[in-house]
Amino acid sequence: MPGPFTLAEIVSQLGGHLLGDPSTLIRQVGSLERASAEQITFLASPRHRPKLLASRAAAVVLSPEAQELTTLPRIVCQDPNLYFARVSRLFNPTSPPEPAIHASAQIAGNARIALSARIDAGAVVAEGASVGERVWIGAGSYVGAGSTIGDDSRLYPSVVLYHGCHLGARAIIHSGAVVGADGFGLAKDEGRWVKIPQIGRVWIGDDVEVGANTTIDRGTIDDTVIEDGVKLDNQIQIGHNVRIGAHTAIAGCVGIAGSTQIGRHCAIGGAAMIIGHLRIVDHVTISAGTMVSSSIHQPGTYTGIYPFDDNSSWVRNAVYVRQLEKLADRIRILEMRLEGKDKND
Amino acid sequence: MPGPFTLAEIVSQLGGHLLGDPSTLIRQVGSLERASAEQITFLASPRHRPKLLASRAAAVVLSPEAQELTTLPRIVCQDPNLYFARVSRLFNPTSPPEPAIHASAQIAGNARIALSARIDAGAVVAEGASVGERVWIGAGSYVGAGSTIGDDSRLYPSVVLYHGCHLGARAIIHSGAVVGADGFGLAKDEGRWVKIPQIGRVWIGDDVEVGANTTIDRGTIDDTVIEDGVKLDNQIQIGHNVRIGAHTAIAGCVGIAGSTQIGRHCAIGGAAMIIGHLRIVDHVTISAGTMVSSSIHQPGTYTGIYPFDDNSSWVRNAVYVRQLEKLADRIRILEMRLEGKDKND
Amino acid sequence: MPGPFTLAEIVSQLGGHLLGDPSTLIRQVGSLERASAEQITFLASPRHRPKLLASRAAAVVLSPEAQELTTLPRIVCQDPNLYFARVSRLFNPTSPPEPAIHASAQIAGNARIALSARIDAGAVVAEGASVGERVWIGAGSYVGAGSTIGDDSRLYPSVVLYHGCHLGARAIIHSGAVVGADGFGLAKDEGRWVKIPQIGRVWIGDDVEVGANTTIDRGTIDDTVIEDGVKLDNQIQIGHNVRIGAHTAIAGCVGIAGSTQIGRHCAIGGAAMIIGHLRIVDHVTISAGTMVSSSIHQPGTYTGIYPFDDNSSWVRNAVYVRQLEKLADRIRILEMRLEGKDKND
Repeated sequence: MPGPFTLAEIVSQLGGHLLGDPSTLIRQVGSLERASAEQITFLASPRHRPKLLASRAAAVVLSPEAQELTTLPRIVCQDPNLYFARVSRLFNPTSPPEPAIHASAQIAGNARIALSARIDAGAVVAEGASVGERVWIGAGSYVGAGSTIGDDSRLYPSVVLYHGCHLGARAIIHSGAVVGADGFGLAKDEGRWVKIPQIGRVWIGDDVEVGANTTIDRGTIDDTVIEDGVKLDNQIQIGHNVRIGAHTAIAGCVGIAGSTQIGRHCAIGGAAMIIGHLRIVDHVTISAGTMVSSSIHQPGTYTGIYPFDDNSSWVRNAVYVRQLEKLADRIRILEMRLEGKDKND
Repeated sequence: MPGPFTLAEIVSQLGGHLLGDPSTLIRQVGSLERASAEQITFLASPRHRPKLLASRAAAVVLSPEAQELTTLPRIVCQDPNLYFARVSRLFNPTSPPEPAIHASAQIAGNARIALSARIDAGAVVAEGASVGERVWIGAGSYVGAGSTIGDDSRLYPSVVLYHGCHLGARAIIHSGAVVGADGFGLAKDEGRWVKIPQIGRVWIGDDVEVGANTTIDRGTIDDTVIEDGVKLDNQIQIGHNVRIGAHTAIAGCVGIAGSTQIGRHCAIGGAAMIIGHLRIVDHVTISAGTMVSSSIHQPGTYTGIYPFDDNSSWVRNAVYVRQLEKLADRIRILEMRLEGKDKND
Repeated sequence: MPGPFTLAEIVSQLGGHLLGDPSTLIRQVGSLERASAEQITFLASPRHRPKLLASRAAAVVLSPEAQELTTLPRIVCQDPNLYFARVSRLFNPTSPPEPAIHASAQIAGNARIALSARIDAGAVVAEGASVGERVWIGAGSYVGAGSTIGDDSRLYPSVVLYHGCHLGARAIIHSGAVVGADGFGLAKDEGRWVKIPQIGRVWIGDDVEVGANTTIDRGTIDDTVIEDGVKLDNQIQIGHNVRIGAHTAIAGCVGIAGSTQIGRHCAIGGAAMIIGHLRIVDHVTISAGTMVSSSIHQPGTYTGIYPFDDNSSWVRNAVYVRQLEKLADRIRILEMRLEGKDKND
């Protein structure tokens, strides 16, 4: 664990305007509620001021608007959330693994493993696979035949990467993620399903994070592509032939059906669902829980959520959801009748 | 397999009022439809009476209201479902595993493993981890550095517990569950995402069950907490910093976004989705498929489901969901016009 | 890799009407956009004609209606999608694995393993399990005690099959799938949950495919049943006691709660959710994202999706979803008042 650092040292590394004792010693980041007297915390929003006043933190990161809300030593900056991310990375850096191949790991004779890589117990690297510098492959993970993993990537335990796929540099793949399983490709033959071979790959760019138990299917013919800097949370399902643009972030439980293309710098809320064969342009935000059933051609925020209510209110209102056309017809008839009356007056 | 037991023995252990031959011999529980002549079944509801009449079961557990629906030997009790659970546990008890550490398991030198524990093939227990009495760790499961597992817990094959987490006593963790992966913590830096280190833990109390492929993320700074007696079904996603109150049950495919707090004794239906930073009080029931987008301050049942319909009816009605404001405006105008007419009359 | 084949050879094996040079040599299938001069592609729909005109493919599969859209060598057939599936299978056949039991696999003494089977590194086959001819069990997969796997089935790496379950012939089970975990069976006892033993099995017929990280729970007493030819995509959750009829296909992220029975030849769209204890007849199609909350007695297509919109429109309209009953009341009052006026006129 690095540190401790004084506030002066932090500001000299990360910038920001320091108010209070520059020699204040910080050993770790902490939450507003639980930070100890040797930890630095941050104020995400002025509405947390009561927690700030009760905080025992040594110092706080906050915005210029909030700088007078406390007398604690503090670092004032434009984006406290980003600043805090950087402070936390200062105290909690990732370091390259100690190179080692565990005796119980199974490495195919013709796989290429960088000398600086680490491969843990029971992991398997199949024929022709290539593992880059400082890569860390967790216990029980599987790297399929001919797959390549870029430098400084980490697979946590129990990740499966099927054959012929590519992971870029600095990837983080959490446990239970499955990359490269067959897409759901079927043709119907007199009521029975014929499997369509899935001969494409999954191609993942640099700086991508994939959450626990997320699945990314290989392409039917061409590749499924996850561009640089994409961040995927847990339990996301990405169908075959999908392309996700660079620096898009997708929250947990999202499903993206086959052949859909999502732009760059999009943000997709948890449990949103996007059907297949759509195009979504850059800089689109999809609200959590929204079902996207047609392409989106304009940047902006899109939503489709049934508002929840206490159950009895829901029951009374929901019955009319299935009668909306009739209600609209009745309004139309009322308007016509009133129009008729106006004429008669 | 324990037993057989006579009905008299069952009633003497579990209570209830016996009608019929007390020496009736029972070897196992069975369903109404398929119970054999040496099995006991139960009647969940009087509307299953036709099945009861056709049943070949040796005996039946039922409520006082239903006790005259059959002439079979029967146990009358207030809560047949609970009673049946107990009868089934009588015939299908869990027993502690045979202590053993499989030769292919990898145990770090400084891990503490109780002598009565069992660790199956290919499992890994990392540095400083602690495994309690009669714990059973399934094949290929991973216990991260410094994690602790309470007595009598069971990890089925292929469970991953990241470093520094805590499982209480009598936990049941099903295959593919991932406990302690990084939360989805990101800060935006000029269109790119900076990862926020996730340095909290997952802390799980006693008597918790976690379903297959469920994921529970570690906290950003403080812990993600699952209190005693919580029951989680399969494929649930629990974000970082969440707290779930004791004895809450959550059905499959539910997602709970980061920093939300759920009370005690809640019941959350399948595929419900709860956004982040909310508070839900004790004794709340959420209907299946409901998207909860604001805090809930009163106990009760809450619902938000779009009613399904045959597709053509749905098409005709759904178009008006996007015109509701206009419909409301037209009603308002009609009311004003009619008001005007009333004044003129 | 088999082939190359001439178009004449393809047509002689698979049928269809050939236009153009029968000696055209084909080495692989390709997409409209990326097929090379030795690949055959297909035209799924006439609206892709611009792509067809730009394609560098050697040949194309298309329907009689589209046969004049190109001058490329082409195979004309009634169902280009199905035909293309067959062509792709011709060039990308699956072959039986090379028989082998990896030295690090753990096979119980009384398990029966066919001589033609292959069991990869770190896989476990527990007591009394039975593995059929030409079965391929991937690295780190687990076959529980007493389970049986039919001929020619394949388990990709990290599959878990609990004890006592049955997989039919020609099954394909993708990584991370969990078959046979306990169903979510609980009885409430004064606010606490009592676990109901789950003593049924999972019984899976022939020709079933199960996607990555899909979970299928064992039955409470009787079995959970997946009939022949069912195709399940990724991250599907199937609760205990469910029965899925033959040749039904289910897309990703679907949840099916306990004891529901789904008919044969159904198609269920992604992220649809079906609550427990329902019956759905044969030949039902459920649209993606639909919550099915009651039984379906007639074949047809059923839908229940909240239409998405730009966020501000959604906000303005959604407020009235919770006022639908009031809007309906106001329409009724307007109708009565107008009725009154009519009488007065």
